[in-house]
Amino acid sequence: MTEHYLDNSATTRVFPEVAELMNRIYLEEYGNPSSMHHKGVEAENEIRKAKDTLSGILKCQPKNLVFTSCGSESDNFALIGCARANARSGRHLITTRIEHPAVLETMKYLESEGFEVTYLPVDEMGLVSAEEVADAVRDDTIIVSIMHTNNEIGAVEPIAEIGKAIKEKNPHTLFHVDAVQAFGKAEIIPKKMHIDLLAASGHKIHSPKGVGLLYIADGVKIHNIIFGGGQQGGLRSGTENVAGIAGMAMAAGMLYGNLQSDTDKLYAMKEHLVDRVTKLRDVHVNGPQGRDGAPNIISISIKGVRAEVLLHALEEKKVYVSSGSACASNRPHLSETLQAIGTGRDYMDSTIRVSTSVMNTMEDIDACADALREAVPMLRKYSRT
Amino acid sequence: MTEHYLDNSATTRVFPEVAELMNRIYLEEYGNPSSMHHKGVEAENEIRKAKDTLSGILKCQPKNLVFTSCGSESDNFALIGCARANARSGRHLITTRIEHPAVLETMKYLESEGFEVTYLPVDEMGLVSAEEVADAVRDDTIIVSIMHTNNEIGAVEPIAEIGKAIKEKNPHTLFHVDAVQAFGKAEIIPKKMHIDLLAASGHKIHSPKGVGLLYIADGVKIHNIIFGGGQQGGLRSGTENVAGIAGMAMAAGMLYGNLQSDTDKLYAMKEHLVDRVTKLRDVHVNGPQGRDGAPNIISISIKGVRAEVLLHALEEKKVYVSSGSACASNRPHLSETLQAIGTGRDYMDSTIRVSTSVMNTMEDIDACADALREAVPMLRKYSRT
Repeated sequence: MTEHYLDNSATTRVFPEVAELMNRIYLEEYGNPSSMHHKGVEAENEIRKAKDTLSGILKCQPKNLVFTSCGSESDNFALIGCARANARSGRHLITTRIEHPAVLETMKYLESEGFEVTYLPVDEMGLVSAEEVADAVRDDTIIVSIMHTNNEIGAVEPIAEIGKAIKEKNPHTLFHVDAVQAFGKAEIIPKKMHIDLLAASGHKIHSPKGVGLLYIADGVKIHNIIFGGGQQGGLRSGTENVAGIAGMAMAAGMLYGNLQSDTDKLYAMKEHLVDRVTKLRDVHVNGPQGRDGAPNIISISIKGVRAEVLLHALEEKKVYVSSGSACASNRPHLSETLQAIGTGRDYMDSTIRVSTSVMNTMEDIDACADALREAVPMLRKYSRT
Repeated sequence: MTEHYLDNSATTRVFPEVAELMNRIYLEEYGNPSSMHHKGVEAENEIRKAKDTLSGILKCQPKNLVFTSCGSESDNFALIGCARANARSGRHLITTRIEHPAVLETMKYLESEGFEVTYLPVDEMGLVSAEEVADAVRDDTIIVSIMHTNNEIGAVEPIAEIGKAIKEKNPHTLFHVDAVQAFGKAEIIPKKMHIDLLAASGHKIHSPKGVGLLYIADGVKIHNIIFGGGQQGGLRSGTENVAGIAGMAMAAGMLYGNLQSDTDKLYAMKEHLVDRVTKLRDVHVNGPQGRDGAPNIISISIKGVRAEVLLHALEEKKVYVSSGSACASNRPHLSETLQAIGTGRDYMDSTIRVSTSVMNTMEDIDACADALREAVPMLRKYSRT
């Protein structure tokens, strides 16, 4: 039976071309970029090439990019590093209630360090408006952190508008965007969108786990949070993960080289799945519909069926999806995002997330829809009380 | 011309078997360990297997192990995490003057946070005695951090004795050991050596850059320093680098499976190189000699020749060594270790480090010795003033 991997927002399969590149680096270009001899220069060149690719995509300078170990570290670095470096200008931060734990938990930590955090609500589509953000910005607001695309329901925030509104209210406030779910799937030009800090992750875009990226705009004051040998201009100590960095850049280049047609393909798959699942009764698709939402995330609430049970029924057909958000740890908890958009108790525990990628085909979508059509009525029968 | 890579303390070539394993994980077992379906379970199993291997080597429980992104992060996590968690018991830390920057720079950061740090001197061999460490331990000493093997001169500290002496003086003081240069080359049993925290790195042992390990003894109070989804029992958020973790464990298993004969081989190569280079005049080998020092690090000072120039002369013969320590950034600076052991000005700028691994052969050693015999007299002639 073929596997139908539809949990791409949790993680992705590495592109074979990327795996091949990394294998070559492991075996041949294995030097330490800090070494002054030829093997070091080879490794340094891989990093330079990666920065060229990524800065071309983000339309910035290579010097604006710092590599980290993951999206979570990038978010931590942006928030803790800038909070510490800018604490003299103020101690107020703003975010939303539906951020990834990498942002929300870091905010909690900063609260324990004496910073004040405003958590903005979102509407029933998971959206926050530029106006609401601007209203919350004060003279002492040093950072606003808003995700580009929500990982659970695919809500795409109006980042460019928000950026503009923040800067109009307080030009000194830094704008951090967690783009872990958006990078590779949406065109993002930090400078044009008034973004000062942007976090991305390798393993969400068909490159390996263990590498992340932080874009830092010119002039942003930030402290490093990992101390040591002073690699990456002192911003991130620790020997660079050369293969991971090269792999992430290659995967990003492949995705952005094909962005328009890939996006069309992803929306077509999304539309097809929504068409098919909404034929089942008492099924609700969460978040913005069609092209108003992300192309690759479909959040489906199915009344009367526990997500965990459904997930295992799909698994038997080798259809792999997640319950709520599997991006965080596997400890069961009520989804912050679903609560924030006002999902009813009936649906809360009954929500699955289907997340696609360019490696999926319509066949995967049909396998998922077929499995749901078969499993849902049966599971509802068993769960009748 | 064959390459002779003798900079293995900076980084190592990935074992082909390890690269193959990682390639399989990238393409097949690519799930997120937090996902509840089969692809997640596959990935989780790889981590479980890795922990079994590594806990077998360190004779501890799998739950004592946390994976990080590198040795530097492991050191940062141990020191910052334990300083924060134990600040109520005291604010005094102890280390030595010859630690890696991942420890020294983290100590400087902790000083800025109000902690007090004692930096112990070392003798002309780079050694600190258990007695000196114990003398420095006070009632309010919360952490002592001492490296197992120095990365520049291969001094091997009397870790077990130091551990015992610390605990006799103050049983509440935590003992952290930076074992980045020792793990894979020396038998280390934390429990027996009174070690509470032990840092290791993947890329020093023929597995990839981007993965590190921290051993944490039972009962140690530590705070996480990266916040997010709560992976690894909340101790290190961020999706686990499954391939890197599996690769690191496999490489460690290979090295420890062969430790005795590999150690003999490394000492034989060291002895042969020392024999040959000391035939040149005005050459000094730094640190403990023979089996008193690490098997794989040979620090050679060559009067009248600038290390950087020599390094490039060797590079022309495809012999790759480092000047001082290339483990940190490539910004030129005077080596802390060489200063601490009292190296004279004449030799300070003229020191190269040859670092071997099990992938080297006597042929590499002879190539290095031949290149030195040829280059040194010629370079001395040119640098005559």
